[in-house]
Amino acid sequence: MFDLHERLAADTVAVVDWPLCRVLLMNDSTYPWLILVPRRRSVTEIHELDADDRQMLIEEVAAAAHRLQSATGAVKMNVAALGNVVAQLHVHVVARFTTDSAWPRPVWGAVPATPYTDAALAERLVALRALLAEPPAGCD
Amino acid sequence: MFDLHERLAADTVAVVDWPLCRVLLMNDSTYPWLILVPRRRSVTEIHELDADDRQMLIEEVAAAAHRLQSATGAVKMNVAALGNVVAQLHVHVVARFTTDSAWPRPVWGAVPATPYTDAALAERLVALRALLAEPPAGCD
Repeated sequence: MFDLHERLAADTVAVVDWPLCRVLLMNDSTYPWLILVPRRRSVTEIHELDADDRQMLIEEVAAAAHRLQSATGAVKMNVAALGNVVAQLHVHVVARFTTDSAWPRPVWGAVPATPYTDAALAERLVALRALLAEPPAGCD
Repeated sequence: MFDLHERLAADTVAVVDWPLCRVLLMNDSTYPWLILVPRRRSVTEIHELDADDRQMLIEEVAAAAHRLQSATGAVKMNVAALGNVVAQLHVHVVARFTTDSAWPRPVWGAVPATPYTDAALAERLVALRALLAEPPAGCD
């Protein structure tokens, strides 16, 4: 029923499925960077979701941002649904630091991605799966 | 009670106040570009809003994006809360075209802003105030 776009699949690793979204880790160690993809077919814009899904989307995005900020100590979270390259609706949740490679610019296209090593990726996934194990309240 | 950050005030023109957000027009004729600012004090992240405000935020953002896409025929809407430069929570809603100056890159920093002429700005505001006169359903 739900297919993840091949470009998103190639650039990320699955972390957990929440009630609405599949939560992905961007395979770029430059920034702590999650992507939330509503598990709905053929949706490219937030306004194409129905109101119940929109409510769930913002609760899941807010929870992912809140937990990732708490875990990393990021000074700012960047939340964005762009989709100019991959139209399938997906929401970036990126933890930003004044010391990161792109600050204060947006992350897209700023510096080439630095994939995690296998060991670092495995470690990061364990931590994220613990952090994100429980979906947010209000998603039932 | 609510103060608009001076940088946002300098770069935009007020269009309308919705139940949660002040809707602003970015004074850059390169793209049809709205900014929605929740009229709450000292909020920099979506997850700092309470759940009722978050629900209202996504309804207002979705309505602004839907109407701006319908009015402009944009191929894609970009929706983003970044805040690296201006921390006050604000959500960009940008209508994108494959022919625009930055496509497919994000708009921030891509090309210098081209302010509207006085006449074009006045005309655009009349159109936007009609388009956005009614707040979205579900915001009561």
